[in-house]
Amino acid sequence: MDFLKSFTSTEALRLIEAFPVSPESETLDLEDADGRTLAEDILSTENVPPFPRSLVDGYAVKAKDTYGAKETSPSLLYVKGEVRIGEETDLVLEDGFSVYLSTGSMIPEGADSVVMQEFVRQAGDAIEVTRSVFRGENICFKGEDIEKGSRVLMKGKRLSPFDIGTLAAIGISRIPVFRRPRVSVISSGDEIVPVDHTPPPGKIRDINRHTVSSLLRREGALVSFEGITADSLPDIKSILLSSKDSDMILISGGSSKGERDLVTAAIDDLGGKILFHGINIKPGKPTVFAQLWGKPVFGLPGHPASCIVVVLRFVLPVLARLRGGSRHRLRKVAALLTTNAPSSYGIEEYVRVTVEEEAGGRYLATPVFSKSAVISSLSRASGYIIVPEGKEGCEPDEEVEVYLFE
Amino acid sequence: MDFLKSFTSTEALRLIEAFPVSPESETLDLEDADGRTLAEDILSTENVPPFPRSLVDGYAVKAKDTYGAKETSPSLLYVKGEVRIGEETDLVLEDGFSVYLSTGSMIPEGADSVVMQEFVRQAGDAIEVTRSVFRGENICFKGEDIEKGSRVLMKGKRLSPFDIGTLAAIGISRIPVFRRPRVSVISSGDEIVPVDHTPPPGKIRDINRHTVSSLLRREGALVSFEGITADSLPDIKSILLSSKDSDMILISGGSSKGERDLVTAAIDDLGGKILFHGINIKPGKPTVFAQLWGKPVFGLPGHPASCIVVVLRFVLPVLARLRGGSRHRLRKVAALLTTNAPSSYGIEEYVRVTVEEEAGGRYLATPVFSKSAVISSLSRASGYIIVPEGKEGCEPDEEVEVYLFE
Repeated sequence: MDFLKSFTSTEALRLIEAFPVSPESETLDLEDADGRTLAEDILSTENVPPFPRSLVDGYAVKAKDTYGAKETSPSLLYVKGEVRIGEETDLVLEDGFSVYLSTGSMIPEGADSVVMQEFVRQAGDAIEVTRSVFRGENICFKGEDIEKGSRVLMKGKRLSPFDIGTLAAIGISRIPVFRRPRVSVISSGDEIVPVDHTPPPGKIRDINRHTVSSLLRREGALVSFEGITADSLPDIKSILLSSKDSDMILISGGSSKGERDLVTAAIDDLGGKILFHGINIKPGKPTVFAQLWGKPVFGLPGHPASCIVVVLRFVLPVLARLRGGSRHRLRKVAALLTTNAPSSYGIEEYVRVTVEEEAGGRYLATPVFSKSAVISSLSRASGYIIVPEGKEGCEPDEEVEVYLFE
Repeated sequence: MDFLKSFTSTEALRLIEAFPVSPESETLDLEDADGRTLAEDILSTENVPPFPRSLVDGYAVKAKDTYGAKETSPSLLYVKGEVRIGEETDLVLEDGFSVYLSTGSMIPEGADSVVMQEFVRQAGDAIEVTRSVFRGENICFKGEDIEKGSRVLMKGKRLSPFDIGTLAAIGISRIPVFRRPRVSVISSGDEIVPVDHTPPPGKIRDINRHTVSSLLRREGALVSFEGITADSLPDIKSILLSSKDSDMILISGGSSKGERDLVTAAIDDLGGKILFHGINIKPGKPTVFAQLWGKPVFGLPGHPASCIVVVLRFVLPVLARLRGGSRHRLRKVAALLTTNAPSSYGIEEYVRVTVEEEAGGRYLATPVFSKSAVISSLSRASGYIIVPEGKEGCEPDEEVEVYLFE
């Protein structure tokens, strides 16, 4: 495949979305399921609440007994007793009577509403109701939250803390979810040394291992760092082979044009298929996507900023599917550019920006100018804007969409 | 303290922000530090990169030797050799010469720019340069990313994957961060049973334990569930005592007006100080904030939706400070309401909404109507809008700010 005939980002994403994946499932305790993706639809075998409950402290009544009640002409109702919270009741409410309840108490049969404590005056063993209520007022009905037999959550949903609460409500304490994808991360390059080594002249520390692993872990991957490989075909083949059991392999560096284009050669030699080599984006052009042993493999650019852009835009969608979800989407905000954002015509450019909120609630985006080999500027940026191929930069005050990093 | 004289949310937040906390620190491996808060400023003892590097594959030159170069009248430069990536070089470039480089190679002394491979023609042991370069072109200078002695990251910063990369770049593999806050979570109420029990008539399952724990864990807390306590003063006191070693205590239920207002009584008895009881918000009014053994204690409403609102709006800011950070902020988007959002005059109301993105990139918010005792609706909502005390609902097409859950 010719490196120069690079794909557009749209073509690249289409291939990425079409890549076949078959995530496996496992069963977890409710405690451990937050953030995981449901592997099955969840149906409720129960009504929630299982009985009608009072939403307030007050008196269960028949609404009709309160019609017309006012401060000046209250309804007088006898008090038949109390339903304590957590207790079953076999009381049956008759016309002209009321039952004292706490928030959460079971509504006795015959009652259709609850008068709040605040609208009641004590009058011996009766109460004066000073405001009318409507039928159903202050009651949470049986099954109003969740109906027995209903589909509560759908397969493919990424569980939120509220979903966890919903599962608790219907008594589901073991949750079928997709396994966390295992991702092998490899750094390649004769110039790369581990973080705890002092680089000798000509060499630099491994940055991509750390940024890539952190980004993937945040998105639910089990990351295994396979090591740093030299720019040598046998070494790259051997480290790929040792990553064979993973669900995805990411190797940064070594996919630039030039004489050291060894990653594609190694994938070829191992029987893999290069799906694309080169995306028409800046930074991030020298990106490889391949299928090896049926699994997705990315060759990522060596420059830290390029590598990050490619992970956010192209790798995370694959990870989302390996996790059993549908799509990964970076959060977006609309913002006004404070200065111009120059870009090259003919290539899709990713301009890192900081975002600030103005007093009026508008967002302002300011480009962070730095070379793609630079990592520290990413710490200061809040996200990126995409300037399309056919456009030469953006003007000050132009409205842009910022894809937020977090 | 009189329950009816409830605080506004602003007053409540002011007390919460003023609560004294003193987070402790620990040292972690780089691998484990993502998402944690820095306990010290980080200064760099090194330049990154430690030497000038080439950003491209090509030839190191003196820029002046290329001035005026064109396709039709190229500059002829002799090739003095090569600097391989990862190697130190003691080559010194003289006028009229060039040195072959790969991306990342060290720039030899005397060179001030790099001509990309694409703008070079081979001519025996010389090259023809077909385009001029400017001084500094295609070079990442020594210290351009991070300068030796500079403050790279500030105490109180919550570390992002990019910060992790920056720390790797300067060789900091052990990171001083604040400890994760230990939070005790307690559920109270005679009607509450654990998720794996079938509730007998009159009782319901514990939902708040699960939503609250998940929300706190996502924000970096070490959550310890202390159990379900009955509505009894001795039981509540005893479970609070067993939570004494935590950094914060949250107890849901039992803080409603009415005869079972036992949480404040228990805190009083144990020598704590109630800071407020009741916030003028809906849902979430029956909220208690107290200081006990010098630690923050929240009495949370029992209704799941109320409980969640209070955790998001009032508990997470305390957690952020216990974690060593400054503020917690929910992410916001501006959206147009699709229908009206009714609210009560005189109380600050939190209306749950779903958010959808229109084709044009605008966001539309639609209120989710449900009672505060209902959990399943939260699974469907994307966030909430706040209707202030002095306002009676919002109109269709009104622009609102949505505080997003995720």
